[in-house]
Amino acid sequence: MTPGPGIARTPLPQGFLASGVNCGVRRYRPDFGLIISDRPAVGAGVFTENRFAAAPVHYCRSILPSASIRAIVTNSGQANAATGPEGVENNRQLAFEVAKELECFPREVLIASTGVIGPQLDMAKLVPAIPELVERATDTAENFSLAILTTDLVPKTVSTELKLSKGTVRITGICKGSGMIHPNMATMLGYLLTDAIVPLGKAHAYLKEAVDVSFNMISVDGDSSTNDAVFLMANGASGVALNTLEDEQKFEAALREISTLLAQSIAIDGEGATKLVEIRVKGAPDLATARRAARGVTVSPLVKTAMHGEDPNWGRIIARLGAEQVPEVALSRLSLVMQGALLFADGRPQPFEKSEVKQLLKKSKILVEIDLRSGSDEATAWGCDLSKKYVDINTEYTT
Amino acid sequence: MTPGPGIARTPLPQGFLASGVNCGVRRYRPDFGLIISDRPAVGAGVFTENRFAAAPVHYCRSILPSASIRAIVTNSGQANAATGPEGVENNRQLAFEVAKELECFPREVLIASTGVIGPQLDMAKLVPAIPELVERATDTAENFSLAILTTDLVPKTVSTELKLSKGTVRITGICKGSGMIHPNMATMLGYLLTDAIVPLGKAHAYLKEAVDVSFNMISVDGDSSTNDAVFLMANGASGVALNTLEDEQKFEAALREISTLLAQSIAIDGEGATKLVEIRVKGAPDLATARRAARGVTVSPLVKTAMHGEDPNWGRIIARLGAEQVPEVALSRLSLVMQGALLFADGRPQPFEKSEVKQLLKKSKILVEIDLRSGSDEATAWGCDLSKKYVDINTEYTT
Repeated sequence: MTPGPGIARTPLPQGFLASGVNCGVRRYRPDFGLIISDRPAVGAGVFTENRFAAAPVHYCRSILPSASIRAIVTNSGQANAATGPEGVENNRQLAFEVAKELECFPREVLIASTGVIGPQLDMAKLVPAIPELVERATDTAENFSLAILTTDLVPKTVSTELKLSKGTVRITGICKGSGMIHPNMATMLGYLLTDAIVPLGKAHAYLKEAVDVSFNMISVDGDSSTNDAVFLMANGASGVALNTLEDEQKFEAALREISTLLAQSIAIDGEGATKLVEIRVKGAPDLATARRAARGVTVSPLVKTAMHGEDPNWGRIIARLGAEQVPEVALSRLSLVMQGALLFADGRPQPFEKSEVKQLLKKSKILVEIDLRSGSDEATAWGCDLSKKYVDINTEYTT
Repeated sequence: MTPGPGIARTPLPQGFLASGVNCGVRRYRPDFGLIISDRPAVGAGVFTENRFAAAPVHYCRSILPSASIRAIVTNSGQANAATGPEGVENNRQLAFEVAKELECFPREVLIASTGVIGPQLDMAKLVPAIPELVERATDTAENFSLAILTTDLVPKTVSTELKLSKGTVRITGICKGSGMIHPNMATMLGYLLTDAIVPLGKAHAYLKEAVDVSFNMISVDGDSSTNDAVFLMANGASGVALNTLEDEQKFEAALREISTLLAQSIAIDGEGATKLVEIRVKGAPDLATARRAARGVTVSPLVKTAMHGEDPNWGRIIARLGAEQVPEVALSRLSLVMQGALLFADGRPQPFEKSEVKQLLKKSKILVEIDLRSGSDEATAWGCDLSKKYVDINTEYTT
């Protein structure tokens, strides 16, 4: 598996092309990207739970899942959210223009937008750039991965080959994150492309399962941006299908792994982030509690600032667990291990050498393991520390 | 009404005395406070929803409401949370020692603790200081209001006289907040004292109603600290009862007003805060949605940083409303007014002179009015901006 940063050439699966150009919405960097499949692909999508979903989200929801997707176009700089009927019309128009250039149906073109909420899409800049976008398409992910970035520092791509019973398939993942690692902070977009033959009936289930343990674990349910979307496109160009149960399991595992690597790359690239923080919760009475607890700790500003200060402040983690409605009895049983050091167990703080743990916290990846000893469910969430740079970025980023 | 900062002398109601001393848990400032009623008072309390409530919270819950409360003791520096059976025993012992000094029953002594989670109460320092604490008690709130502070910058006290049909009563409120204005960030403690005659059967209802529109609107349900508590003590020393419905309504209104002033003083004193942000939501389909929406906007880091940057970034507010599950239809109707300027209406951004609104945002109090036009319920929440100082404070504040 070749993880990002996307400076390295990241191959696309067979039959896929991608490109990114600057159409002038943003001053310098690429702001308009396109993924093309040379044949109709099975498409699925998972979208934001925000009630004020952007025009492109409503549009894609109305189409997916679909047996015939040819392209995904993405513009950055304008979210096309809270733009009213005009925004819906602009979105429709954009799909129409791209379809015309690709000689396919508008319903075969998916759209994702990211950027500032409110402004209408600058159609006068987007539409004329479409021919160039198609012309420049290549078999690597780089230009597209750059075009979708907003405040991200690095493009995020992962690609892997997967040997199945009847041959080899490729899965390539591309995403953008930013904001804090918390999709209500900025839009998260993910693209999972494969040349495997995936049945339409299973595409959405595969995608949902992968997103739940990855992208959704760097977010908080019901608290996501107006534009969050993760897409799966499977064009079958490898001619290789998932023939056996083992093939299916391998494919699902690879999809999960790629999604998790992408999700982690979003967390570590969180605005102002200096550390990746991984919170593992086990021994939960149910999966919902495990997920809520793990995510709750990763989004706590007090925990995030403590991690930034390399301070083994386990009390802030315990308090957040209680705030996340972990069963009261867990307090008398749970254990909390930070960077391998046992800080709390059996309802009592454990003696530890603070200076030693502070040393361990200097690492760029922090692992906190919590065993609630109240059941058998577990979940892992990823976040980042909270630095002054985050405040700078979001104080200065203007409407 | 004489609102804080508590530099001004804040009188206590008749029959109440209060004090604050340094017992040595913290290096310099007062860290141990006591409120005494010279006669048994009706007592009620509203406490954190955190599942890992501290020992003093469990203890007070087991006692309140009560017809016979003589004192509330509060220590700062140690939260006595996550301290196991030893913490429960220390709490019991503290109540016992204070009761001995006051010659009352331990069950007549309430306890609140605030500070770091984990360490056991330093009984060797607390117990010997009790006599001095009782000795030094005066009829003003200042010393107590200082003793309960943690990272607060200013003591917070409010007092008012209330003319009722049969005479005049006084209500004095004292609180501490800090953390962000978000009780999972640090403990919030509130004390409402009155010399009015309040029936035991109504004390809790009066308190709950006042807390719901004030202290609870600078917090997020189910996401509060292990120690949050707001107390009401009514000792009847004025000899004046709530005889008429009008008396009751006057008393409830005064309790609400005092609680709201205290809550606002906590928000504006939020760590690193430079602005008080008031979010008014009306036209909600139900009260729960109004409260969730108003609170959601006040706790959004993106909104908080935008306010700090004096940036009229209404898109971040709209996105948060959607994330708070405001009905989708509201987007096409809602209006958003910031500092009197209409920024969004009828599902569309409204043209506005950004430089003018930026000027209005330089004020130390920001008002955002949101009309969802989807019903008749409303709620107001208070928060503060998010500055780099917040990160400093919480990066350096150690376990």
